Amino acid sequence: MSVLVVGSVALDSVETPAGRVTEALGGSATYFSLAASLYTSVRLVAVVGDDFPQRGLTMLQERRVDLRGLEVLPGRTFRWAGRYGEDLNSAETLDTQLNVFAQFDPKIPGDFRDTPVLFLANIDPELQLRVVKEIHGASLTAMDTMNFWISSKRDVVTEVMRSVDVVLVNEAELRQYTQTRNLSTAARQILELGPRAVVVKKGEYGCAVFGRDGYFAVPAYPSEQVCDPTGAGDSFAGAFIGSLASSADRSWRAIRRGVLHGSVVASFTVESFSVDRVVTLQREDVDRRLSELVSFTQIEPDWEKELIDANQYPTEARR
Amino acid sequence: MSVLVVGSVALDSVETPAGRVTEALGGSATYFSLAASLYTSVRLVAVVGDDFPQRGLTMLQERRVDLRGLEVLPGRTFRWAGRYGEDLNSAETLDTQLNVFAQFDPKIPGDFRDTPVLFLANIDPELQLRVVKEIHGASLTAMDTMNFWISSKRDVVTEVMRSVDVVLVNEAELRQYTQTRNLSTAARQILELGPRAVVVKKGEYGCAVFGRDGYFAVPAYPSEQVCDPTGAGDSFAGAFIGSLASSADRSWRAIRRGVLHGSVVASFTVESFSVDRVVTLQREDVDRRLSELVSFTQIEPDWEKELIDANQYPTEARR
Repeated sequence: MSVLVVGSVALDSVETPAGRVTEALGGSATYFSLAASLYTSVRLVAVVGDDFPQRGLTMLQERRVDLRGLEVLPGRTFRWAGRYGEDLNSAETLDTQLNVFAQFDPKIPGDFRDTPVLFLANIDPELQLRVVKEIHGASLTAMDTMNFWISSKRDVVTEVMRSVDVVLVNEAELRQYTQTRNLSTAARQILELGPRAVVVKKGEYGCAVFGRDGYFAVPAYPSEQVCDPTGAGDSFAGAFIGSLASSADRSWRAIRRGVLHGSVVASFTVESFSVDRVVTLQREDVDRRLSELVSFTQIEPDWEKELIDANQYPTEARR
Repeated sequence: MSVLVVGSVALDSVETPAGRVTEALGGSATYFSLAASLYTSVRLVAVVGDDFPQRGLTMLQERRVDLRGLEVLPGRTFRWAGRYGEDLNSAETLDTQLNVFAQFDPKIPGDFRDTPVLFLANIDPELQLRVVKEIHGASLTAMDTMNFWISSKRDVVTEVMRSVDVVLVNEAELRQYTQTRNLSTAARQILELGPRAVVVKKGEYGCAVFGRDGYFAVPAYPSEQVCDPTGAGDSFAGAFIGSLASSADRSWRAIRRGVLHGSVVASFTVESFSVDRVVTLQREDVDRRLSELVSFTQIEPDWEKELIDANQYPTEARR
């Protein structure tokens, strides 16, 4: 089934220890769309300025992303500039020019309104709330947010959380929102608002999903060439939601499957600047790395019993 | 088979957001011994002052730890005082009094010399080197170290690494030693010195093992009551090495099994101050949590194929 994403399309200038790019394709909805397009058809709702390069549109169209919800306004496209130091886990923002994004007023084309799966990428939570009400028939809704909205519009962020099935959040933002250091305790606070699952993104440490039905954690794929972490979270979300949207299965098993797909696609994203790697990514690449990730994290099927029984040491000898 | 550990036995005063303890039982060899004693018989080589409390000795003896290598010198026992803030991942040292530990000169009792498994806990690498030469017939040798020795005696640390089968190190120290940010690249540098495996401890993020035969990572058990992280790494090492020592299996499978046991035992250690939890721990507790950790990190045996095949989306539709 199709996925509708509402978010940003931007031009990013990024500096990392591996190099730099200027005005490269970026934005939460961009990364999300390219990742999700590996799994299902994607409808994008966003805004760009009339300076937005044709090559950006072409990249998305080549992935069959439906751009009828991409509004082009007179003016400049949203620009972000940031720098990552040796610690690639967080960026220092050097410059933010909202430009036409400041007036973003998502317009959902009529035949997008029945999209069964909705992802609210990181935008003003008031807009997220409006969209989730417009697509009220969606069978699966998910959201992301960021520190800026948590500090400036916490109550609205809470309202959005109450309205969705899945909350994706990074660990620092989860702690900020809940004012709680322990992630399990923090995630439970969000589950109590209504979502079925809280997916906590931990950058190079992988991710964890806290669900009403259980807990699942996966380490990151151990990439040796982390080049630019921008878009890791959004492409994680794209593969996670895309994987879920590719079938009607909403079980705990399907959620965990989505987490593994998200981890793998994010691991490719960070290996190049901008969308360079995710835009060339094929399902065969994902599947190959998924098998590797399984071998890096999974024990043999017959192993659990042996795991426990193998270490025979008589209890009395320990007393 | 038996394990010989050479390390510190100390009295720790620790402050965390959960409370504080004064002059509680601590030290790398203490945590290691108590954890390893769940799996096999342990021989401890360390030094304490004549002020060391009898209850400390009793605790170790009740776990059948062989204390014939524990020297008692006139003077005061090694004392450490530290504080953990909200970020429980690292301690601020408030006070270190080496006392008799400053003259530590490990004396290996004659019948300890043929111990088949040796763990060099964090002590002066020159002493580690001497001990590894004295127990040269050990079939499995492992070491830990710390930032202090890496900056003051890096070359000697390297010599110890060349002499052992397994290096246990936390991620900050691995980066410090290799001057390399990427953990995979950094671990490979150590593997090139000779060890068969490098176990990287990441605190609340779990751990990863880089081996000549593969890579394996496990997230931490998601404890909701982290009280005092002191000794997490040493009790991880105790369970890891103890698990390996409990059989003659040194396969990659056995190493991964050890990592899972280490993770579980460490997760108990941090739930109380000092050795309070690890000293009461039983194998049944470990086994129960091991099953939980498996359910939190493992996918169903028949799942890998489905994981990959389930997301059917025709390739041509993506182009």
